[in-house]
Amino acid sequence: MFKRPRGTRDLLPKEMAARRAVESVLRETFERYGYGEVQTPTFEHLELITAKSGDEITDHLYDFVDKSNRKLTLRPELSAPTIRLYVNELRNRPKPRKLYYFENCFRYERTQKGRYREFWQAGVELVGSARPEAEAEVVALAAACLENIGLKNYGLTIGNRGIFRAVFNHYNIAEDAQNLILSQLDKKDVQFADLDMPKDAKNITVSIIKPIAMIKESLANRKNIRSRLQTILKDDFKIIESELRDFEEFLDLLEGFGATDCEIDFLIARGLDYYTGMVFEIFAKEGLGAQNQILGGGTFSLVKLMGGGDVPSCGFGFGFDRLMLALESQGALPASAAAPRVFVVPETRKMLNRAIEIVSDLRKEVSCELELMGRKLGKALSYANTEEIAYVLIVSEDSEGDEVILKDMRSGAQKTIDYREVPDEVG
Amino acid sequence: MFKRPRGTRDLLPKEMAARRAVESVLRETFERYGYGEVQTPTFEHLELITAKSGDEITDHLYDFVDKSNRKLTLRPELSAPTIRLYVNELRNRPKPRKLYYFENCFRYERTQKGRYREFWQAGVELVGSARPEAEAEVVALAAACLENIGLKNYGLTIGNRGIFRAVFNHYNIAEDAQNLILSQLDKKDVQFADLDMPKDAKNITVSIIKPIAMIKESLANRKNIRSRLQTILKDDFKIIESELRDFEEFLDLLEGFGATDCEIDFLIARGLDYYTGMVFEIFAKEGLGAQNQILGGGTFSLVKLMGGGDVPSCGFGFGFDRLMLALESQGALPASAAAPRVFVVPETRKMLNRAIEIVSDLRKEVSCELELMGRKLGKALSYANTEEIAYVLIVSEDSEGDEVILKDMRSGAQKTIDYREVPDEVG
Repeated sequence: MFKRPRGTRDLLPKEMAARRAVESVLRETFERYGYGEVQTPTFEHLELITAKSGDEITDHLYDFVDKSNRKLTLRPELSAPTIRLYVNELRNRPKPRKLYYFENCFRYERTQKGRYREFWQAGVELVGSARPEAEAEVVALAAACLENIGLKNYGLTIGNRGIFRAVFNHYNIAEDAQNLILSQLDKKDVQFADLDMPKDAKNITVSIIKPIAMIKESLANRKNIRSRLQTILKDDFKIIESELRDFEEFLDLLEGFGATDCEIDFLIARGLDYYTGMVFEIFAKEGLGAQNQILGGGTFSLVKLMGGGDVPSCGFGFGFDRLMLALESQGALPASAAAPRVFVVPETRKMLNRAIEIVSDLRKEVSCELELMGRKLGKALSYANTEEIAYVLIVSEDSEGDEVILKDMRSGAQKTIDYREVPDEVG
Repeated sequence: MFKRPRGTRDLLPKEMAARRAVESVLRETFERYGYGEVQTPTFEHLELITAKSGDEITDHLYDFVDKSNRKLTLRPELSAPTIRLYVNELRNRPKPRKLYYFENCFRYERTQKGRYREFWQAGVELVGSARPEAEAEVVALAAACLENIGLKNYGLTIGNRGIFRAVFNHYNIAEDAQNLILSQLDKKDVQFADLDMPKDAKNITVSIIKPIAMIKESLANRKNIRSRLQTILKDDFKIIESELRDFEEFLDLLEGFGATDCEIDFLIARGLDYYTGMVFEIFAKEGLGAQNQILGGGTFSLVKLMGGGDVPSCGFGFGFDRLMLALESQGALPASAAAPRVFVVPETRKMLNRAIEIVSDLRKEVSCELELMGRKLGKALSYANTEEIAYVLIVSEDSEGDEVILKDMRSGAQKTIDYREVPDEVG
């Protein structure tokens, strides 16, 4: 017997039906917001991925050399490929471009609950605008996805890297040091004093960055952010005032979109260098343990990195597998029908042709299985029972005209009816 | 700028919308016939693929070694993975198992029209029965898919390897020689006399196999097959009589399923060793040139090869990309809406909040795009035009209450209406 590769999954019909049902809600929501789907290749040139994520990522890649010695890798995420597609195919089209994807990604990592070596991401990239209304719509879309799917008990947390950047730039902190500090912000319990960095950067970090990082307010109390920043920055407040004004407008518009149940937390900084302004994350508050983040996103400058000019963009990615786990742990998986509704059984071999005529007609409206093992009625009924098929339709020699026997497998009741009434009966 | 890898594609929203529409018809048809979806990993252990297809296939694989020195390969097709899943996860469940898949596959091959290094297959495997009614239903399902999609002008051709096998076995022809001859049958113009094989096998091939391979009849004239086989086989006719009887019953049942427009052609032998009985192929008669096969399938013995016992099965796989090309060349692509229906534009910045309220409400029913670039009305209208968005909804300072201006972009006509009437207006 052959096994599937370690860290991968075989998904069976029941699970696939639930996954497709959730996928379909995500797609429909993305499309309602004006996004169109794109699909990129499963593998990319290795240099595309390292250009975005650094050489360190190769330790976690399924990278390989093809038969013409091209260095390729299975994609570890979908932002870089999607933005590459934008630069290659769409950069001359009017802006914005609103693109969504629903695809698999691959990372060579230790496997654990909710983390697989092949996993699925659903997400959007809004290319061409990072105006407050664009950022607000992107966050509102993420919240609308969860609303439409029916996930409860999640946290939506918003941060802002632009304000940190403005402080750093005012004090001429080198970009490497900026990135080091911001990447540490995500690790909630970091002791900034221990960081190995230039002395002036350390002073700024302890006296300004850390107090800002401690700001945490509900959306309703967002007015407090301005006064807290004034207290921290004093005379330097003006260096972040333009960033703050955009952020405040973004928060006002976000409330207008109806996404009121969120928190502003400057500790949310997303550990990736290319984020420039607003950043946000969504966490499931139950069922996922420590690996509870189900979405990350924000405003970023990937287009430039990919050679497409200084085009702002924002977006997000759902971890689809974790989203499914969160729904499951809440008992919120959609009711999806993996089993056919009707099992059509000829009572004798002689009735097989008639059963075929009937099943062919019924399939125009209902999902049907036909007895294909030559079983007699008793065994066929027991199969229908095991398979959780709701109704068995028996084509009997004793029936007249278009009559068949319809048996309800839950109640055990059976009656003789015209087979054309079956779709209404079982619907 | 980074490029996508050679032989792969970037699929843009318009094309994706058409592909998803066709995919959705295929899924629905599979499910109406009682099939449930499965999903296997994108890569498998190399030995799974070579066990099915032989070591020669490695020349055409994206195979690689992972960071723990596992020999893996991107899957080149989906039968072997699907049957592996059956053996690993479902072999103890009642039979039949009716499984379908819709996934991407990978081959390192010279690229040409309709052939890509990453391509998509849709297919089914019916595991546990190769009775005539099972075979007939599988062929009928393939025809139903094309019927539901709306592909015209295709050819469905049915062959039978079981009858050849019965002749070979009667004359004790070794399996290697059998496979060599059958694999040559697919190459329509082969000169069997040139084959390098034992003398007795060559005699049988020329005197019996070749004349049988020339049998070609429409389904309506299928009765002729029996008399032609009697003429060829004379006293040996009895050695194939049981195979022939099953095949005749299969053809009768196929007619019962309504798949009357097909041809029996014994030259269709499918070049793969594991096919045991009925085999079939579907060709597009226009638009695809020489690479015109869009489906292949039949009855096969893969379960045994995968270590799951002597369980018969049948199935087929569509080449989804060629199917899309065939539909396109016939002008039969489904009308799919890649663009949103409505573009919501605040006439001034002051109206942005009101526009957000309106668009949030409308998106419960209609796909809408909101102006996110801060453009004035004229530029926003020109964007809607380029993007082929059907309606522009203008939120004006002059409007009262819930009134908005709705502009039909095709006719240019505009009127003032309550925004809640928009879904009906644009639907």
